[in-house]
Amino acid sequence: MKNIVILGSTGSIGKSALEIIDRMPEKFRVIGLSANEDIITLKKQALKYKPEYICITNETIAKKIGIVKNTKILTGYEGLIKLCTLKQADIILIAVVGSIGLFPLLYAIKKRKKIALANKEALIIAGEIINKEKNKYNARIIPVDSEHSAIFQILQNKDINSVKRIILTASGGPFRNFSKTELNNITVKQALNHPTWKMGKKITIDSSTLMNKGLEVLEAHFLFNIPYEKIEVVIHPQSIVHSMVEFIDGAVFAQLSLPDMRLPIMYALTYPERENIIIKQLDITKTRHLEFQKLNLKKFPAFYLALKAGKIGGTMPACMNAANEIAVKNFLNGKIKFNEIPYYIKKTMDNHKTIFNPGISEIIQIDILTREYVQKLIDMDKN
Amino acid sequence: MKNIVILGSTGSIGKSALEIIDRMPEKFRVIGLSANEDIITLKKQALKYKPEYICITNETIAKKIGIVKNTKILTGYEGLIKLCTLKQADIILIAVVGSIGLFPLLYAIKKRKKIALANKEALIIAGEIINKEKNKYNARIIPVDSEHSAIFQILQNKDINSVKRIILTASGGPFRNFSKTELNNITVKQALNHPTWKMGKKITIDSSTLMNKGLEVLEAHFLFNIPYEKIEVVIHPQSIVHSMVEFIDGAVFAQLSLPDMRLPIMYALTYPERENIIIKQLDITKTRHLEFQKLNLKKFPAFYLALKAGKIGGTMPACMNAANEIAVKNFLNGKIKFNEIPYYIKKTMDNHKTIFNPGISEIIQIDILTREYVQKLIDMDKN
Repeated sequence: MKNIVILGSTGSIGKSALEIIDRMPEKFRVIGLSANEDIITLKKQALKYKPEYICITNETIAKKIGIVKNTKILTGYEGLIKLCTLKQADIILIAVVGSIGLFPLLYAIKKRKKIALANKEALIIAGEIINKEKNKYNARIIPVDSEHSAIFQILQNKDINSVKRIILTASGGPFRNFSKTELNNITVKQALNHPTWKMGKKITIDSSTLMNKGLEVLEAHFLFNIPYEKIEVVIHPQSIVHSMVEFIDGAVFAQLSLPDMRLPIMYALTYPERENIIIKQLDITKTRHLEFQKLNLKKFPAFYLALKAGKIGGTMPACMNAANEIAVKNFLNGKIKFNEIPYYIKKTMDNHKTIFNPGISEIIQIDILTREYVQKLIDMDKN
Repeated sequence: MKNIVILGSTGSIGKSALEIIDRMPEKFRVIGLSANEDIITLKKQALKYKPEYICITNETIAKKIGIVKNTKILTGYEGLIKLCTLKQADIILIAVVGSIGLFPLLYAIKKRKKIALANKEALIIAGEIINKEKNKYNARIIPVDSEHSAIFQILQNKDINSVKRIILTASGGPFRNFSKTELNNITVKQALNHPTWKMGKKITIDSSTLMNKGLEVLEAHFLFNIPYEKIEVVIHPQSIVHSMVEFIDGAVFAQLSLPDMRLPIMYALTYPERENIIIKQLDITKTRHLEFQKLNLKKFPAFYLALKAGKIGGTMPACMNAANEIAVKNFLNGKIKFNEIPYYIKKTMDNHKTIFNPGISEIIQIDILTREYVQKLIDMDKN
């Protein structure tokens, strides 16, 4: 029986994780849950799973939850960190969205917890620091993103020095075949309609701009200690092949399944074992065709910007990530157009003076300042 | 530096192996080579690699080779067995075609050699005995067939109990899209023209009847100790995905490369390491489409017969294999038609009284008697 904490239990990943835990009640006990704002769902979950703690990150909203029987209520960042450092916690699933995942991750590493990481922003903004801490505390991070889970699974017990390149697959999002003109007039509704994956809003928009794939390149770089030159992206519209690894002798390994996030979530929770719970079996003859295409960088500047930030390093990924989070928020609010997302990211990156080998406080500062800067830019342009 | 013996060095696999060794002269020393009849090629190879021994299996032809400087000449089965049991031999590549591979394999197992196995017939006719010996002597057999090499590579350091099924891919051969009527009139030339792989004659015909894929199912059964119910075959015309393994959680792993036998041969020789010699890199975006289709059993009765023999077990696989070898020989000689290959196999299997848990001498006897029986059947029908 493993004690599990889920940060972001009311989101898409968090809910799927609980669904998996429901099917393996003898394997997991939920001892902590957190939500940002969705206190209705969180309260329901608390009543069902009876965790020792729940945490509401948004402190204003936290006041409205009232009393939950047998469960202590935590709030804010401190609450998240307390959840990650609970002595009795074996597994921490970090499924919060955005840079808010950074401190929980760092604390979970320090406490040598088994970490199932569904948050990519923490690694992206502070990958170098996280890897130092990870090595120092000999912590184990198991990725939950389907692509990184695929790579992680392929690399198990393999010699990392024999890896020639990592090939991340990308569905290409809903606008893969759109012309540049069509890309100008995309509505929020269109962008939220992903062809193969059902996910949260922020990541769905990131998928449609291909920013998500750019962030995943950075994530892969930090997770697997692979230089950017050895990471490639190919468009694979069916989302059946979740990623590939080529070895120096020319052998390529791919991991495939029907697109179902429960598979990588389950793997991260049960690792290194595999469990046989009901996930629909892939019948490759029903899919019939698996297509692979080159990525058209010109059509998706957000991808290019993410990669550029990664290669620059230092505080540039934190700047790029913050700019993207704010730009996406403004797109979702109807304040900016789809093709203005990369525009504002680029403008912000051009303005940023990179600090190399930054400390964690510098990264946090850049994160906050960049958010303010981008919002001001947008407000000035649009008001 | 590893000392290597190649049985069948003048065949397609043997020549490719020598080509690989040419590129890694610091890793391998050739100490033994063998051929069945092609003494011209064998002599050239002997003069180039200066092995301590060569062996010509066909004793009549052996007399014609004359003297090869610094190399001892062996003949017949005894010669093959001597090569496999040389004290100084580290790796034995068994690349002879047909059931002649059985005794060399058994002796190499007994001497605990590292065995690179490119002969499938030995395993098929005597799989149970070979596995017993393999376990007894704790020997390591590394498959060279591209499909089995793929599965072997995927299964490395994986828990075999977590395997749900093995999915062997089949190019479908040149007649995949032929109608039943068209299949009646296939010429030897057509059958020898495989769409994706360049191989020896016997295996090319076996590929066109899909007998080869049936034999591969039996081979996989014995190599990986997987029940027949867990082995599936899908048609994959591009021969890029060499096989797949599905695990109980729903994750499927595939091994991919351009169709190039040098890759699995090299892997078998360098295992567990991988070496970076010039094999053309797979650009999946150039392939664009990977197709997968169900296998049409009605069109390819040879596949069904092989599988049936495997499931019956005992001496039936040996009977089926011998019948196939003779039928293919008669097809190549123009004596029987393409669709008569499975006809004669079926007739022979129907006539066979299976002996269960046979000893090696019983298998050999069945092998010899079946060959005589099938040839008589054909001679009676055709003369």
